[in-house]
Amino acid sequence: MRETDIVRRLGELRQYRNRAVIEGIGDDCAVVRPAPDSDFVFTTDFVLEDRHFTLKEHKPEAIGHKALARSLSDLAAMGSEPVFCLVSLALPANLAGKWIDGFYKGLLTLAREHKITLAGGDLSRFDKVIVDVMCCGRVPKGKALLRSGANLGDNIYVTGVLGAAAASNWSRPPEPRVAAGRRLRGLASACMDLSDGLSLDLTRLCTESGVGAEILSASIPIARGANLDQALNGGEDYELLLTAPPSVRIPKKIGTLPLTRIGGIISRKKPAITLDGYPLRPAGFDHFGDMK
Amino acid sequence: MRETDIVRRLGELRQYRNRAVIEGIGDDCAVVRPAPDSDFVFTTDFVLEDRHFTLKEHKPEAIGHKALARSLSDLAAMGSEPVFCLVSLALPANLAGKWIDGFYKGLLTLAREHKITLAGGDLSRFDKVIVDVMCCGRVPKGKALLRSGANLGDNIYVTGVLGAAAASNWSRPPEPRVAAGRRLRGLASACMDLSDGLSLDLTRLCTESGVGAEILSASIPIARGANLDQALNGGEDYELLLTAPPSVRIPKKIGTLPLTRIGGIISRKKPAITLDGYPLRPAGFDHFGDMK
Repeated sequence: MRETDIVRRLGELRQYRNRAVIEGIGDDCAVVRPAPDSDFVFTTDFVLEDRHFTLKEHKPEAIGHKALARSLSDLAAMGSEPVFCLVSLALPANLAGKWIDGFYKGLLTLAREHKITLAGGDLSRFDKVIVDVMCCGRVPKGKALLRSGANLGDNIYVTGVLGAAAASNWSRPPEPRVAAGRRLRGLASACMDLSDGLSLDLTRLCTESGVGAEILSASIPIARGANLDQALNGGEDYELLLTAPPSVRIPKKIGTLPLTRIGGIISRKKPAITLDGYPLRPAGFDHFGDMK
Repeated sequence: MRETDIVRRLGELRQYRNRAVIEGIGDDCAVVRPAPDSDFVFTTDFVLEDRHFTLKEHKPEAIGHKALARSLSDLAAMGSEPVFCLVSLALPANLAGKWIDGFYKGLLTLAREHKITLAGGDLSRFDKVIVDVMCCGRVPKGKALLRSGANLGDNIYVTGVLGAAAASNWSRPPEPRVAAGRRLRGLASACMDLSDGLSLDLTRLCTESGVGAEILSASIPIARGANLDQALNGGEDYELLLTAPPSVRIPKKIGTLPLTRIGGIISRKKPAITLDGYPLRPAGFDHFGDMK
């Protein structure tokens, strides 16, 4: 199969068409029209063979799902509505037929669910499968949820339960919290997604906000079958971590998704974090550190 | 070195700050504010080890330059002004120090020249070097130069000279024609960049426009040291291919860059292309076809 054929087939795929996308697949660039009084947010995430998945253990549908889910989770963390994505895919020639169809099927099923349009990308041959997904979301002007907004006295919350990904040996397909992120716009003072583990991600949020935090192990919503270490350091839960001042009423649930208060911002000494009064060492997943 | 350290160093790099970029490196997403009455254009391009370069033959600075240049060339083809880029980089751990510094030095030198801001990206460890650069540009609303705008009777032009990349065994650093693309806005009826060779890229433009073309070998500006085959099929020249109706005066030069009329759009029979009256077979570089 030639690139031209693959691109033509992509253009024919059934997908959600966001009205902001004026020109999609087929030109040098996608053309996107901003809405008045809106900001755009952008993120990009790799999903790499033998690093984030293996061809033996993961079906192409699951890889397509995961590749988009990782980026959608970042859009959720900003409180944004998904608009479009670009998908860069490199793969061995022998995967060009059925595998590529499964990959885009998995990706586009999740894309339809979150009303995001595949507007372009790049395609190349390589000896391993390489995926890089860029996602763009929209927020009302100035309303993006940043990591840097946490203040002294704020409460700290998480969505859902933690440690489930690690307890499933990271085989669970991630569910990006897009609806929850949007609902938290105007409520949360800071927000990020839990991709690398609570201990490391809370350290990052505190660093960006210039604050310190205390959390309580008894408050952490640990997933059934997981332990405290997995909830703190397991990574890939793709829940949201957020802060809000005590004056703001954070809902106990968004849809069926619970929100739990796990601690508070207690100092301006960044990024000192304590768990049950003892210093908590960030031990989550560092993409450039040792592999799991 | 850990991801956090690399990201912090990136945040400290000297670079051009586009005012549209509200939040850059360090959050879940970059935040970008659209200008009134503007559209955004987006493109993404891989540069892969042992596919587009080798570590033995290419310095990190040259790889950084090439990775950004490929995407900037797509922005040029849309007639857009560069706004920001996201850079996804995966590499072996032993390249994390000096190599990574050279890579970003090469990339950011070209970025400053074209006033584009590095606003984020992804970083991962991998056994080979993988680069994926997403670039965003801005055009006045509705003014993006598309591949699909060529009409019967239009003249066909190219910028610069062709075949130089092939004649240099693809070792010449590409120079994206950003200023020329912007100057052609409102003049060209269709435009694209010549990344894969004139024969294949003209076929793509004609396919998107639903037209056929004739070009003359005597009119093609062949680079010194190159032959006609390299000018037609060599690829990676990163010049612009454009069409314009005879009523539009296309400048003979933009700055020091010549523009040359090489033929015309002669039929609505897509995408029949003739060279000196004989059918021209698209023979350029297909990313998913055979490797060179």
